[in-house]
Amino acid sequence: MKFGAVRQQDGSVTVVVPASRDSVAPVPGYHDLAEVIEDPGRAGAASEALRSGARWPEADARWLPPLRRPGKVLCVALNNSANPDRIMSGPSTPAMFVKPSSSLIGHRQPIRVREDYGRVHPEPELAVVVGTGGSDIPRAGALSHVFGYTIINDLTSPTMREADTFHYRAIHPGPGDADGVRYVDSWVSYPARYKGADTFGPLGPWVVTADEIPDPHALRVQCRHDGRLITDDSTGNLRFSVAEVISFASRYLTLEPGDVIAMGTALRASAGGGAVQNVDLVRLGGLIEVEIERIGVLSNPVERR
Amino acid sequence: MKFGAVRQQDGSVTVVVPASRDSVAPVPGYHDLAEVIEDPGRAGAASEALRSGARWPEADARWLPPLRRPGKVLCVALNNSANPDRIMSGPSTPAMFVKPSSSLIGHRQPIRVREDYGRVHPEPELAVVVGTGGSDIPRAGALSHVFGYTIINDLTSPTMREADTFHYRAIHPGPGDADGVRYVDSWVSYPARYKGADTFGPLGPWVVTADEIPDPHALRVQCRHDGRLITDDSTGNLRFSVAEVISFASRYLTLEPGDVIAMGTALRASAGGGAVQNVDLVRLGGLIEVEIERIGVLSNPVERR
Repeated sequence: MKFGAVRQQDGSVTVVVPASRDSVAPVPGYHDLAEVIEDPGRAGAASEALRSGARWPEADARWLPPLRRPGKVLCVALNNSANPDRIMSGPSTPAMFVKPSSSLIGHRQPIRVREDYGRVHPEPELAVVVGTGGSDIPRAGALSHVFGYTIINDLTSPTMREADTFHYRAIHPGPGDADGVRYVDSWVSYPARYKGADTFGPLGPWVVTADEIPDPHALRVQCRHDGRLITDDSTGNLRFSVAEVISFASRYLTLEPGDVIAMGTALRASAGGGAVQNVDLVRLGGLIEVEIERIGVLSNPVERR
Repeated sequence: MKFGAVRQQDGSVTVVVPASRDSVAPVPGYHDLAEVIEDPGRAGAASEALRSGARWPEADARWLPPLRRPGKVLCVALNNSANPDRIMSGPSTPAMFVKPSSSLIGHRQPIRVREDYGRVHPEPELAVVVGTGGSDIPRAGALSHVFGYTIINDLTSPTMREADTFHYRAIHPGPGDADGVRYVDSWVSYPARYKGADTFGPLGPWVVTADEIPDPHALRVQCRHDGRLITDDSTGNLRFSVAEVISFASRYLTLEPGDVIAMGTALRASAGGGAVQNVDLVRLGGLIEVEIERIGVLSNPVERR
């Protein structure tokens, strides 16, 4: 099943998408996807909607992010095994940051950038939608906590990242004197702007339930700019698996139904030699598409703000 | 007015706190503080509750975070003018990160830490609660967007911060060739764990409406560990003001009603020579209190998880 949210005159409507993907059918009774996730009877309701309900052409749907206000959008950084040479030192466990829900937009909604953002590039990623929450989730059963999968374009401004990096002296306890102070030369960067600006989180078009994706690590991931292939990668290149990330993250941050976990970027350059980091959407504008096998295509035009 | 949320058998209840602070009165009709913020008639409802409604002793209240699921908790980093010597290089604008709502706890709820978190220290901060949302909010009118103020203890694990810092080679466009690739030696750190672990966001006890705090930059901020004064600072030492932060942040991230903005830590060491960074709650346990003038005292015991 593919569940999504579209905007109608009177608010948002939960829809189901048939296998053909050429239409959408409203599913009555759900205010949003959070309610779909909570309802064990959702498959019946969706089947009924597809069989006997209204239908609209998919092309006319005004998509919203399938989850509009998730408790958190937890993003895994540098989680690609294809470029290990880039990491000079770093964690041997998933490193994560949080993207605010105010950054989320739906399929076909515009990415809005300002010239003074500097560079802004796309990052095509598999996104996991949590179905059953929990803490300290064992790796073995972790996939049973997944409601489904969708696509996120984890837009990033390396210019703002550089701007929001501090080189500073962290205060540590003194050696041999817990009340003493010594300074430790440190670097720290803060991602709210460079990862969380408005429209920096295209999400969708819809969420595909987990039963349709038996192996989340065998999915081709492609990113295109104005039709040109930039990245052709696979979720098989993820360094930490979905189960590993769920298990690790939930040891620190309780996962809640509807939470979104962005699994990290498909980084492998295309045969054409491109790299997502070179697709500066502020300079180039255009249309950016992320396609993930078995899920669909998330497509967003870029606008100057 | 002081509004908060307490847990009852049948869920959470919105309460108002009288000037004496020794009792709480449930305010019927509000599911949560988000509804209070939206209702222009809240002062009347609160007065009525204080005049004629039920009363419980404050000491018996099981406090929840006054906002349980804000759209975002936006935190300003290194925003204290008292220690400029610590910053070797860094932004001349507010640097920000996002704390997940799953990290929030209420007054008197336990901070739960694990031994392998390494060090965890408190960071006493003024928190702004957004009343009227917006983008591109001019500095001049920014304070009119504030619903009220509360206290946040922005708990931080410098050990996990070090662990989640990457020294890596960022991909930048090649010089003179936008399709070329050059590597730039970079540092980046990811705060989801070290700032966003469960219980790392004590918030409250309540929200004081803005009319009771005419100047948010004249508030004494104190932090005590087991009764010992660690920090005695003032919001007058904030480098970027509330209006500056609201204006700057809203240029990038749309602010929504109920969003929380943590203004950055009161860092000045107490006369006794302590520093919040030396109060390792994993090692010491105990009770940590943050007091801000005109708001109250946010107090949380530390437990081993």
